[in-house]
Amino acid sequence: MPHEFELIEHIVAGLGTPEGLLLGPGDDCALTDFRAGHVLASSIDSFVPDRHFPHDADAWLIASRCFRAALSDLAAMGATPKFALLALTCQTSDQAWIQAFTEGIRDTAAKFACPIAGGNLSTGAMNLTFSVHGEVPMGQALTRTGARADEDVYVSGVLGGAARGLAELRPADRDAVCALAETSSDHPLVRYWLPEPRLALGRSLIGLASAAIDISDGLLADAWHIAKASGTGISFNPSRLPKIGEIASSDDYELLFTAPREMRARIESLRERVTRIGETCREIGVWLGDEPVSEFATGFRHFSA
Amino acid sequence: MPHEFELIEHIVAGLGTPEGLLLGPGDDCALTDFRAGHVLASSIDSFVPDRHFPHDADAWLIASRCFRAALSDLAAMGATPKFALLALTCQTSDQAWIQAFTEGIRDTAAKFACPIAGGNLSTGAMNLTFSVHGEVPMGQALTRTGARADEDVYVSGVLGGAARGLAELRPADRDAVCALAETSSDHPLVRYWLPEPRLALGRSLIGLASAAIDISDGLLADAWHIAKASGTGISFNPSRLPKIGEIASSDDYELLFTAPREMRARIESLRERVTRIGETCREIGVWLGDEPVSEFATGFRHFSA
Repeated sequence: MPHEFELIEHIVAGLGTPEGLLLGPGDDCALTDFRAGHVLASSIDSFVPDRHFPHDADAWLIASRCFRAALSDLAAMGATPKFALLALTCQTSDQAWIQAFTEGIRDTAAKFACPIAGGNLSTGAMNLTFSVHGEVPMGQALTRTGARADEDVYVSGVLGGAARGLAELRPADRDAVCALAETSSDHPLVRYWLPEPRLALGRSLIGLASAAIDISDGLLADAWHIAKASGTGISFNPSRLPKIGEIASSDDYELLFTAPREMRARIESLRERVTRIGETCREIGVWLGDEPVSEFATGFRHFSA
Repeated sequence: MPHEFELIEHIVAGLGTPEGLLLGPGDDCALTDFRAGHVLASSIDSFVPDRHFPHDADAWLIASRCFRAALSDLAAMGATPKFALLALTCQTSDQAWIQAFTEGIRDTAAKFACPIAGGNLSTGAMNLTFSVHGEVPMGQALTRTGARADEDVYVSGVLGGAARGLAELRPADRDAVCALAETSSDHPLVRYWLPEPRLALGRSLIGLASAAIDISDGLLADAWHIAKASGTGISFNPSRLPKIGEIASSDDYELLFTAPREMRARIESLRERVTRIGETCREIGVWLGDEPVSEFATGFRHFSA
């Protein structure tokens, strides 16, 4: 087994040269600068085996799923990824696992132009933590607080696929899932393992959407987050929901957003797949058709071992 | 037991209002801006029980020790803290533990002017991960790569105290350690539980030091990091080392730095306690007096359960 310092050097080498940074991994801190007129959007997410992914899954798939899920928070603010920091706690003696994991990180970083600027490697119970950072035009970030009554409510993509993928989960490797993704991006296994952070859509929604959130806890739970933060209500039209599984299920990482009605034509002409699924109202709450939805009765179903 | 969302709201409320941010916890991302002419310095560190701290220790002390250790990386770059993100994985049913932990985070954030801008709470094997971010004047960060031959080598504070604290560790609560800190900042238990990130010193060294690192792995191991990154050698004078314990031991979080000789008067007149402990040389390596020090034979001794 190599010394821990050598293992870190090996991982850093495997990630390739990070672009767009002033200083990448290997010093006490990474250094980055930002475009004038932009601010920094930052989020942190941890992933734990048998809660956020099966512990015995392919390490490339684990890395891909978790990094993509973390990037989804940048999409929900309309931010463009700039860099990520990765803290990996695992049994550092399992070099084959670390190798495949590093490749998953490298491929995801390249796909979404989000280089790993720095990291931390510890020995212990497995835990993956990503701190992701992006830039967004000053004063234009898509927060949860901007929804007003009598606006339209939209969702991107399809709902419920990730939960179906979880329910139908079977041992899979990167090749099998990538082959599925080529032919069917809505396949439940693809939805579970390779969620799509809606970064291009998030950027497109700047100046159009009044509030946005990414659906990590489930459509209804995340609608409650917008409702409470904005002091408004959200009423869904059940017949319009683009669902391929349970809508209250977690992990879809689609964007739920609100927008004034006068933006409707511009939103419906966007290149990305979005569906108008309801409207906002004055009373704080969430409704599915005529049925009020309780705040804590919904969503947030993680993997259960 | 409250719902996880309520627990998060409780923790965020306990942290107080973060100052100096455009948007704090509660949305998909935090938002910050930076002073013109400055760049962002970023680092991530994870802490695992019985490796970085005893699992049954006082939660306020655990929070304080880990957050301070993470901030030390900003000190080593000469950066001024701007914000931190915190990912806490633990058994979320232990509310008393979370309460005390939150108070430790709050007090450390206030002391070092580094508000918690966002976080993540997961249920699982305990793991604390801090992503810390600061600003540093463009082109002036203290990296590891700038040391040249025939420079002076310095260290701040004293060495070996944290390892003695670890060896003599006994159950202690925040009141006992804070009382000790009032009367003896070099007490081993204080050195272990309340390491001092040398932020003011780091800022003072901008324009004076040629390279700097914080001593997390031990004086000799971290000297090797500068030596390799700078392509130079570091030779320590054993009789000058300000030690109160083993110098190769980890976790002191003092700054080890190099500086051209013409900076000597300005460095020795700094307000902070620094000691000139050696010099740099042309050949890559580390020496303790006449004895060469092997790269992997040193430092990096963590807590062993």
